[in-house]
Amino acid sequence: MTLSRDTLFDNTAKALGYSFDGELTIGGNYVSVMRHGNVLYLSGQVPRVGNLVVVTGRVGADVSLAQARLAAQICAMRALALLRQTAGSLDNIAQIVKVNVYVQSASDFSQQSEVADAASELLHSVLDDAGRHARTSVGVFQLPKNAAVELDLLAIQE
Amino acid sequence: MTLSRDTLFDNTAKALGYSFDGELTIGGNYVSVMRHGNVLYLSGQVPRVGNLVVVTGRVGADVSLAQARLAAQICAMRALALLRQTAGSLDNIAQIVKVNVYVQSASDFSQQSEVADAASELLHSVLDDAGRHARTSVGVFQLPKNAAVELDLLAIQE
Amino acid sequence: MTLSRDTLFDNTAKALGYSFDGELTIGGNYVSVMRHGNVLYLSGQVPRVGNLVVVTGRVGADVSLAQARLAAQICAMRALALLRQTAGSLDNIAQIVKVNVYVQSASDFSQQSEVADAASELLHSVLDDAGRHARTSVGVFQLPKNAAVELDLLAIQE
Repeated sequence: MTLSRDTLFDNTAKALGYSFDGELTIGGNYVSVMRHGNVLYLSGQVPRVGNLVVVTGRVGADVSLAQARLAAQICAMRALALLRQTAGSLDNIAQIVKVNVYVQSASDFSQQSEVADAASELLHSVLDDAGRHARTSVGVFQLPKNAAVELDLLAIQE
Repeated sequence: MTLSRDTLFDNTAKALGYSFDGELTIGGNYVSVMRHGNVLYLSGQVPRVGNLVVVTGRVGADVSLAQARLAAQICAMRALALLRQTAGSLDNIAQIVKVNVYVQSASDFSQQSEVADAASELLHSVLDDAGRHARTSVGVFQLPKNAAVELDLLAIQE
Repeated sequence: MTLSRDTLFDNTAKALGYSFDGELTIGGNYVSVMRHGNVLYLSGQVPRVGNLVVVTGRVGADVSLAQARLAAQICAMRALALLRQTAGSLDNIAQIVKVNVYVQSASDFSQQSEVADAASELLHSVLDDAGRHARTSVGVFQLPKNAAVELDLLAIQE
């Protein structure tokens, strides 16, 4: 039996130990998702659950690679939660197109791709081929709320 | 009486004390606006007025939050000026879709969202609902011409 | 006699002294190009030739402006190679729309535009008017594999 994407999402949330139900708090004067035609533009997501940013600090110094990968997964789950809310179900998402990953990095940390891979793998595992995407990952100096990782993306709704 | 968006733009320029008329200087070998269909892609805007970048330095160190917010407003005004030139009038802009804000940050400055809010609020105040947008803001290490803030955006022309 | 774009590309590769034939290695779990309609989204390209990132380090400290410009050119050549593979020939590319350039910068280096210009000029020289584009360039703290420069872009296929 094939599980629906929404069930895969719920199972992933349970495995991570976080809930992404309800309203997803944002940190400024903008909207979380803007649609143009069937293209959905998502705002940058930090690893926030409820009102708490759960992974803060500089990756490669205070934050380990494993913790940064968890942060990237939480960002990706928030993005999926927003897509699900917007499209009614993740089954209505035709394709993730482009993902941008920003890693708050220490001055000698150059494994931004390995951090971003955790988000990419999660998107694949929930959406299968619809989760494939082009990607850019860079190491930035600071992120809002001292978040370890920030992620935004572009998706197509069916 | 409702003021036209172009009048709101002119009033905002007056309130800021800067003019955004005439050609908007850019700092390299590219174009300010590229159109594909009805989508307008804008190049990164620094807080330049005429030939001078008016807010330079590192936000959280040499540049205060208030100065950084002014810088973000000037970037947003440049973006609006380019949209107006391209579309003939701001009344021909259907929607701002996505805004990216880059803040040249000190190593402990994490209020990038608060900086970006100043740009978002300005876009709302001039364009009303058409100024709503998804947004990503990050803190970068350096910006061209030592600018405190850089902003680019994606908009739809009617 | 006008040279085809593919010939111009090959001549440029020869002049740079690098080959961009064959599969282009990427550093993570994503795809190099994602298409939506006639829009091609490219993943971030570092100056990698074969398995080697050929320009690493911090621009303005270990890496000179000239070396950084070479890095930007290699990134742009990788992007063109991907467009050529995807579209069959560079003659099938209608327009480069937007280019983003990330420069791994020293704390006092603010010539990101001058670095990015090398990529922009190369795109123009191979694609002529189809190589014109909007652009954003910023100075980031770290890049994957300690690359000096990373570049992504958005293009339209005919």
